[in-house]
Formats: sequence, C-alpha cells, structure tokens
Amino acid sequence: MEKFQETLQKILPVNGEVMEKTQERLDDLTKPPGSLGVMEWIAKKIAGITNEVKPGIPQKTCILIAGDHGVVAEGVSAYPSEVTPQMVMNFISGGAAMNVLSRHAGAELIIVDMGVAGDLPDMPLLIKKKVAYGTENMCRGPAMTREQALKAIENGIEVAEEVIQRGTGIIGIGEMGIGNTTPSTAIISLYSGKPVEEVVGRGTGVDDERLKIKINAIKRAVELNKPETADPIDVLSKVGGYEIAGLTGVILACAVHRVPVVIDGFISGAAAVIAGALNAEVKDYLIASHLSEEPGHRAMLDYLGLNPMLYMNMRLGEGTGAALAMNIIDASLKILNEMATFSEAGVSEKIEDEQKV
Amino acid sequence: MEKFQETLQKILPVNGEVMEKTQERLDDLTKPPGSLGVMEWIAKKIAGITNEVKPGIPQKTCILIAGDHGVVAEGVSAYPSEVTPQMVMNFISGGAAMNVLSRHAGAELIIVDMGVAGDLPDMPLLIKKKVAYGTENMCRGPAMTREQALKAIENGIEVAEEVIQRGTGIIGIGEMGIGNTTPSTAIISLYSGKPVEEVVGRGTGVDDERLKIKINAIKRAVELNKPETADPIDVLSKVGGYEIAGLTGVILACAVHRVPVVIDGFISGAAAVIAGALNAEVKDYLIASHLSEEPGHRAMLDYLGLNPMLYMNMRLGEGTGAALAMNIIDASLKILNEMATFSEAGVSEKIEDEQKV
Repeated sequence: MEKFQETLQKILPVNGEVMEKTQERLDDLTKPPGSLGVMEWIAKKIAGITNEVKPGIPQKTCILIAGDHGVVAEGVSAYPSEVTPQMVMNFISGGAAMNVLSRHAGAELIIVDMGVAGDLPDMPLLIKKKVAYGTENMCRGPAMTREQALKAIENGIEVAEEVIQRGTGIIGIGEMGIGNTTPSTAIISLYSGKPVEEVVGRGTGVDDERLKIKINAIKRAVELNKPETADPIDVLSKVGGYEIAGLTGVILACAVHRVPVVIDGFISGAAAVIAGALNAEVKDYLIASHLSEEPGHRAMLDYLGLNPMLYMNMRLGEGTGAALAMNIIDASLKILNEMATFSEAGVSEKIEDEQKV
Repeated sequence: MEKFQETLQKILPVNGEVMEKTQERLDDLTKPPGSLGVMEWIAKKIAGITNEVKPGIPQKTCILIAGDHGVVAEGVSAYPSEVTPQMVMNFISGGAAMNVLSRHAGAELIIVDMGVAGDLPDMPLLIKKKVAYGTENMCRGPAMTREQALKAIENGIEVAEEVIQRGTGIIGIGEMGIGNTTPSTAIISLYSGKPVEEVVGRGTGVDDERLKIKINAIKRAVELNKPETADPIDVLSKVGGYEIAGLTGVILACAVHRVPVVIDGFISGAAAVIAGALNAEVKDYLIASHLSEEPGHRAMLDYLGLNPMLYMNMRLGEGTGAALAMNIIDASLKILNEMATFSEAGVSEKIEDEQKV
C-alpha cells in the first residue's frame, strides 16, 4: 500500500524542453518536415520520457503476466482455465508466439505468475508473485479484495523495477489468462461510458451463444459490484484481474523511472486505462502498438489519447503486438540518430522556405 | 519490347495447394486459429508465391529508382528538380531515411538512375539505366514515348533479375523523383474512376495555391493526352514517369521469378496499379506495407485488393514504408517456422473443438 502511494506520487511530466530540441533536429534531417509521421512522434516522445535529445537504442524487456479468472465458471471463454498454466509452461519452454516475437525483437521475456489457478513448478525463468489462485467469480462478488488488487500492483512495480535496475530502457507488456477479455471489457465499458454490447468482442473466438453469456456476465458483475470509476482501485478489484493489476503496477513503475512502455492489445490496454485513471501523466509514457480485433480496444486507445501503428487484425495477446512494435521504435530512434541533415548532405530545402529567406 | 512481352506471359498463379498446407500448420500452432491475423496471411501468401510450405527468412533487397518530371515546370512541387540528383547523392553516401531503414531491415539497397534530369558521376553503388533526362511536361504532350516507357520497364526487369540471381528472396520497392505524386495521381484517378480532387494530396507538402496548380495540371494532362486505361502502357507513357515504369518492371520480374514484392507508398503503388492492370495475377505477388498520407493511396490498395499493415502517417517515399514492413514479414515467417504445435506443447484446444470430437 505504501509502495503504491509512493510510486503514484513520484510520477513527473515528460520533458517538453528536450522534446522541442528533438523536434528541431528532426526538422533538419533530409526529408520534408513531418514526412516520417509516427516515427518522428515516437522519437520525440522517447526523448521527452528519457530526458535525452537523441536517445540511443534501448535494452528491451517484455513482461508477460499470467492470471486466472473465476468468471470463466459462467462459460465466457472458448478455452478452459487449464490452458493458462499450460501456456505458462509453453512460454517457459519457448514455443509460444510471444517467445518467437520477443526473440525477434531482441527483447528479454519475463514470465510472471500473478494469479494462476494452479501450482506451477519452480523454474529459473518463472517469476512467482502469485497473490491468489485466480480471481473470484465477479458475477457473485468482487473479483479481488482491495488489498489483493494493491498487492498485485505492488508486485508488478517490483518486477518492473528489477528489470529497470538491470538496464532495461523500454518495456513491452503482455498477458495470459483464460477469460481475461471479460474483465477488460467491463473496465473499458465503465471508463468510456459505452454500453457493454459496443465494446465486447469474441476474445479467443467464442460463438454467438457464448458471446451472449459473456455480455450478460459483464452486465451482472457491474450491477452487483457497482464499481466507482472515480476510484480506479475499486474498479480494478471488483471487475479486474491479477494480471491486469500487475501490469498496472509495471506501467506506474515505468512512469516513475522514465522508461517508455509499449502496450499490447485489449488486456494490457485495460491495465493502461486503470493506470491513466490513477494518474493522467502516465499516458505520456505509453506507446500504442497495434489495434486489436477486440472492438473495445479503440475506446481504450481513445481514452489514453493514443493511436496504434499496426493494423494486423491480431487478437492473441501475450504482448505479441508490443513485441512487433519494438522494431519500429528502434527504427524511429535510428532515424533520429543516423540520418544526415540538409547542410551535411548538400540538399536544397523547400522552395517556399528558400523564398522566405 | 520482346523482353517485356516474354516476362508478361511467363507470370503464373500462386500455389493454392501449398497455401492450404501452410494454413493447416498455422491452425495447429499454440494460439487460437487466425488470432495472428495479417501475420498468418503474410506467411501463407509467401508460401503460395515461393511454393514452399515453410519458407525460410529471405535475403532482402530494396530497389530505389529515381527519375525527374517535366511537369515540375508547372509548379506542382514544393521542391525544385535539382533535389532529385542531390538526394541520389545522399542515398549513395548513406544519409537518407531509406539508408537508415534498409540497414535496419537487413536489406541491401540498390539505387537506380532511370531518368534523372542531370548527369550523375560514375559510382560503384549507382546503377545507371537512364532512359532520358526526365520526362517531358505531360501538360504539353505525352510524358514519354511508348518506346521509352517500355525501355524503362525492361531496365527495371533487368535490375530485378540481377538481384534475384544473386539470391534475393524478397524485394521492397521505392523511388525518388521531385514531382512524382503528380503522375501517380493521374494514374490512380484513371484506374479508380475517381475525380482528381478526391485522390490528390500535398506530396512533399505543397500549400493550397500549389495544390490548385497541381490539380489543374493533372486534369489538363489527362484531357490533352487521353490515356486509354485498357492499354496500361498508354497510360504509363502519357502520364507516368521513368521511376514508375522501372518499378513496374521490377514487379513483373518478381512475379515471374516468384519473389514477393513489398510495395511502399503512393508512387510504388502507381507502379503496382500499372503492373496489375497489365496482368491481374501480379496482385498475388504483392504485400502492402503502410498507408500513405496521400489520399489516393487507399484507392490504389483497393484496386490491388490489398490492406496496409502500418498506419504511420508517412509521406516520404524512397521505399521507407516497405523497409519498415520487412521486419514484420520476417516475424511472420518465424511464427510459421518456430512456434510449437498444440500436441508438442501439451496445450488443450478449444472447448467447442473438444466437444465435437
């Protein structure tokens, strides 16, 4: 609780002065001003976060947090809860999509058990931060107690601080948890004010019947628990999940330590919404990666004031979109660092600019 | 002329049987079927092109073709034509955005002079294929003769065949040519049937006054030259350009030799439209990279039946979007090759699927 409050209070705004200097350099490179669009925005944003006019290529870590969901008992998912620990084992042995894409991105992949409904063996690659064996069924009461939610946030802060201490300069976030589009939908419905039907999706691929069950379960959970959006911890504990809380903690730690966070899809988006609701400055530390197939993802990005760069029709989670975006972020920083300026290259500037001189 | 006809006739359809086998493997990987969206589509497409169920990571080349445009005399661009050879020198010395992004993609970058309005020095990194010192002003007559357009296509075929012979397995295309959004706008207006006003954009960044001049110039050129869309070479020669024709040749050669082509923005899109109009099978060999800021780019991709994966608000050209996409294409092939299957990883499949058994 103390760590959480302390972290929240230590978050400062990004550095506008440094961003202006970076913009000057970007405008002096041999290209029409602004013609590299989002790549320029990324370079400038990372400059503002890191306080460096020309930030170098950062050491990368992806943090994947797993948790289970009591609401799966209602029949909201196409897969059984046993898939969560099975997939954790798959991550550990390196065969999941996220392993492939983290390796491809040159990022270390950290796997965290924050609330898997089963015991996992001790393994060097698994970080055990389990708060409980999955959430309670939010259709029958709060998913977590307030204390459990805060504990998961603080565990997330600890995981992030540990990798930042080891030199990580950018963090991608992802998750695994059968049923977790259900709490994420509840969260964005509450913060966007949009009806559940507008922001709900098929998750891993439920059929029409299960989709109805899912919508109904979310509505019942919200009606029963009456989460207060003015108190993000209330929302998180009543209709959230352990992996969502853990990722909220990761985001808060990144903002304090001025490390950019690349968010993935719908579940890491829910964590970002909670973090942004806790402290609006956090939004300036976030980089959106892809636009998920989940209809509510756009509402999350709108809430955060972010635009996705990748349109890949992906809906896998794990952090796969965030890992893909890492390469584009590296490219953006190389543009800032490696391109020639007009004067260096002896290239003429715009006719209008010349005429003004 | 003979080489052109021969190339056009040798283009075959992609291999549907191989694509089905690739789809089977994709569906057996530890993820909900289809959940990696466009990544799966890319892997399957490259399988169909290369006739390999599990194609490996290809050797990459980006081909950047430069040419000048007589229509610049009408005042359609924010930059003077002298910038074209200046930027070619910048490419040769490695300081342009495309140099940075090609290096980042692990791609060789080939620079070709197909019609720059000035003499360039002999340099080991420059391929000289100049057909003329820029096009004629299309507001006063055809931009090129039919023979010149065909010569530029054949030169493009030669450049591509040379790099394919050296082992290139994927080609990204890009261009440099002050004024070249003007002919590209004429081409997409003709093939989409949309009025010039709907598909025109600000190119490198013209103001309102120049935009009016540009629209007017395109309309006059089309009215004067009366290009026939049923004869793509007629369109290309009357309102095209040398770099556009050269890239058309590159695309045709790739389709013959079953090498995927990554198209960039608005100008390489115009080349793809011409290639697709010459032979519709060509479209199956293309991968779209980003959606350009030029409003007419969407119409081009619609004509080609393609969806862009990157939304970066870019409008630089050079092949920068294609180079950025190379990394995502590599990632897609790694997914196909490196992920575990359900049985390998011991992960349960969908509940509905289990129940069906």
